[in-house]
Amino acid sequence: MRPEAELVEQMLGRLGPRGVLFAGSDKAPFEVSSRHGAGHCVAVVRPADRTELAWAMDTLTRAGVSIVTQGAATGLVGSATPSTDGTQWVLSTQRLRDVLDIDPVNRSATVAAGYRLSDLNHQAQRHGLVFPIDLGADPTIGGMVATNTGGARLIRYGGVRENLLDIEALLVHPQVCWVGGTQGLRKNNTGPQWAQLLCGTFGTWGVVAGATLKLHPLPQQSATALVAVASAEAAVELLCALELAMGEFVSAFEGLSAGALEAVSRHQGHGVFASTPPYAVLLEVASAVPVGHGLAIEAMLMTWLEGQLEAGLVLDAVVDKPQQLWRVRHAVSESVQALGRLVAFDVSVSRSAFAPFRAAALELVQGHIPGALVCDFGHLGDGGVHLNAVVPEDTTGQAIQGLREAVYDLVVGRFQGSFSAEHGVGPYNQVFYDRYTPAPMRALCTVLDSHFNPGHHLGNVRLG
Amino acid sequence: MRPEAELVEQMLGRLGPRGVLFAGSDKAPFEVSSRHGAGHCVAVVRPADRTELAWAMDTLTRAGVSIVTQGAATGLVGSATPSTDGTQWVLSTQRLRDVLDIDPVNRSATVAAGYRLSDLNHQAQRHGLVFPIDLGADPTIGGMVATNTGGARLIRYGGVRENLLDIEALLVHPQVCWVGGTQGLRKNNTGPQWAQLLCGTFGTWGVVAGATLKLHPLPQQSATALVAVASAEAAVELLCALELAMGEFVSAFEGLSAGALEAVSRHQGHGVFASTPPYAVLLEVASAVPVGHGLAIEAMLMTWLEGQLEAGLVLDAVVDKPQQLWRVRHAVSESVQALGRLVAFDVSVSRSAFAPFRAAALELVQGHIPGALVCDFGHLGDGGVHLNAVVPEDTTGQAIQGLREAVYDLVVGRFQGSFSAEHGVGPYNQVFYDRYTPAPMRALCTVLDSHFNPGHHLGNVRLG
Repeated sequence: MRPEAELVEQMLGRLGPRGVLFAGSDKAPFEVSSRHGAGHCVAVVRPADRTELAWAMDTLTRAGVSIVTQGAATGLVGSATPSTDGTQWVLSTQRLRDVLDIDPVNRSATVAAGYRLSDLNHQAQRHGLVFPIDLGADPTIGGMVATNTGGARLIRYGGVRENLLDIEALLVHPQVCWVGGTQGLRKNNTGPQWAQLLCGTFGTWGVVAGATLKLHPLPQQSATALVAVASAEAAVELLCALELAMGEFVSAFEGLSAGALEAVSRHQGHGVFASTPPYAVLLEVASAVPVGHGLAIEAMLMTWLEGQLEAGLVLDAVVDKPQQLWRVRHAVSESVQALGRLVAFDVSVSRSAFAPFRAAALELVQGHIPGALVCDFGHLGDGGVHLNAVVPEDTTGQAIQGLREAVYDLVVGRFQGSFSAEHGVGPYNQVFYDRYTPAPMRALCTVLDSHFNPGHHLGNVRLG
Repeated sequence: MRPEAELVEQMLGRLGPRGVLFAGSDKAPFEVSSRHGAGHCVAVVRPADRTELAWAMDTLTRAGVSIVTQGAATGLVGSATPSTDGTQWVLSTQRLRDVLDIDPVNRSATVAAGYRLSDLNHQAQRHGLVFPIDLGADPTIGGMVATNTGGARLIRYGGVRENLLDIEALLVHPQVCWVGGTQGLRKNNTGPQWAQLLCGTFGTWGVVAGATLKLHPLPQQSATALVAVASAEAAVELLCALELAMGEFVSAFEGLSAGALEAVSRHQGHGVFASTPPYAVLLEVASAVPVGHGLAIEAMLMTWLEGQLEAGLVLDAVVDKPQQLWRVRHAVSESVQALGRLVAFDVSVSRSAFAPFRAAALELVQGHIPGALVCDFGHLGDGGVHLNAVVPEDTTGQAIQGLREAVYDLVVGRFQGSFSAEHGVGPYNQVFYDRYTPAPMRALCTVLDSHFNPGHHLGNVRLG
């Protein structure tokens, strides 16, 4: 028997047939990345609880195999997809669903890695609470913590890191070992914490088995508007005005280019505005104060919008059912993709650099690939831009690679921005991590790799 | 000339007389801790800019001396005070005041380490913004970042960590080296970040020279109430009710025991309530929405309080000028100290464990030191308790040490809480850090010590 077949047998013996998938058709769903390519794995291991998880990781790491941890596989940089050479094992957290405890007094939740964001929020809502990370996908909690996901409401609530009270993680070197806990402390200033250290390291230094998260009071009223403005500059001006006028209520401020709006119009068969404006913003204000208690947030937004229309900063505004307007926003990615060959970017800059960066980026894309259609959109409130472009079908791979390099050099080099605002680091952008991460950080990560993952058997990103 | 006198000469030659203090009277203010004891240093080095800082740290570390970094010396665990043996040098960041830039569009500030919190907020206010960390003291920004300070408004805004966009830090090993930057990105998911790694490590792994911080819209209206309740349990119930009713407006929820209230009454010469209730809460709600724009937060709070009075959860409530009520809260620490010999604690538990922990702690203190008067208070909204007690003057040092150990064992062992909620780790509580920090975290910190600070020449805390 080949060594890997022996290991599969051993896993089967302990985890049972639901715990190990090795037939091609069973493995297939775990081998596909949601955006960039696919890989092949030896087998998928799905422990049902922490004891099985620790045993499986102990056995696999002692055998010296390479393991990539996967939640719902909704990531966009391939960090949960096995490599193409077929040598990796997938550790799936799907069945780690033994704990989902809401503590309404502590306003927190302790959740096993395999639960989905929607599972958590379904339970939290029953207590008038919410975990307010808003994403297009429905990832697992373990994946969200490992990836430090951001999303559309970061402007108000922060991302995963800011809402992570504690973590339960399994380290694998020199032997498997549990760290972190479920304390749920908001204040604990006793030196480095595992939650902070492991969040956003993409599963390379340990396996996230569970997390204790801050919950927030569930909004009881909200108002949403799709607003047409003359330019990206005007959108930034509007953002500052909105924050000064409606402060803590601002829960989303999403930018939509004319290209993105037109893509959605074509895809949905109708437009929101009579004619497509140069730029638009989807803005949302919300409050946890129930209606009828001295706050009417929709009326407040309407009054403010009228003022901005009169002042000329807003050209047109549609205030509709939130679901309708968010449907436009959430349709952008798919609508742009439907237009043709997509080149996608997830970058960010300081909000004050947003408009100049965008202008420079549009010019750069046109210069590199004539005929490219930029349909940018994203989380303008926190400086995030999905600078997605549709390029002619006959564009060469070399030209696309050249464009990617030029855009990242622009954002990182000239505008001191980020080459990965919220998607994280994976095989898809490892080369840019290598290029832009300064030497002292690489040196530190090398030290941490040696400590946690010396043989690089965990994950498929190299931070060191 | 002795080697240290030579080093002082060398510093003087480059930094000038304002940059090096070595006379006893000049050094004295830098040798005193704001709560726990005092030490002695060879000299105080005060670079005026980053070039001088890098040169001084390079020269001192090459000479192999031990250095403790100090901001405004307002910390409460001695981590910025030189040791008592007189061998350490103090690096003061007081004169690092070359940058204080507010970016109103990015809603952020880039600040050199030596500016005080009040300096920053004075500038931020001119743009309608605030850095919302609220502390009894007025520390430097560098000290706040190194210590990861918390304070009274963490319940709404988070602490320093959650508001830290970037850091500029000087590493010293194997040679001085600048890391971090002033990018001011809200989204940057590209692996470990220096800001997260160095915040809350008390200056042991590098010197914080500056930080880029999130600012928030400045509150335009607020309402404050001092509320009497029947017990700590009732206070926790009130907290949950307030958060569900007034959600994002809640900006402080501070607990005050009868002992703390009586200490303040005696100190100020008058009480707030006709008779001292079993427990009280100082609560604050605030909004960045200007008055007259459809929100009247004081009226909203009054209505809510009336409902709680009718329901019997609130026994009495005083709604006064915020300054008056905050004066009561801020006077607690000093008033308790004035009663006699103080034993102070800065601990935290989960909010759901708050009332049971407090009951157990009161019993434990009385059992250990009969006649001790517990005057606990603190940040109930985030589970923080300053469990300060006044003990009889003739209490032995041994009894006090026994009490400290018993309280920390209770909080950490039985209630899974923290032995240092917000003050951090320093010589004052190093022994408890050593006792309660699990082995895998100590092992990691040892690895990081070897990387950043192998000779332990930086700081006076040992994390590894």
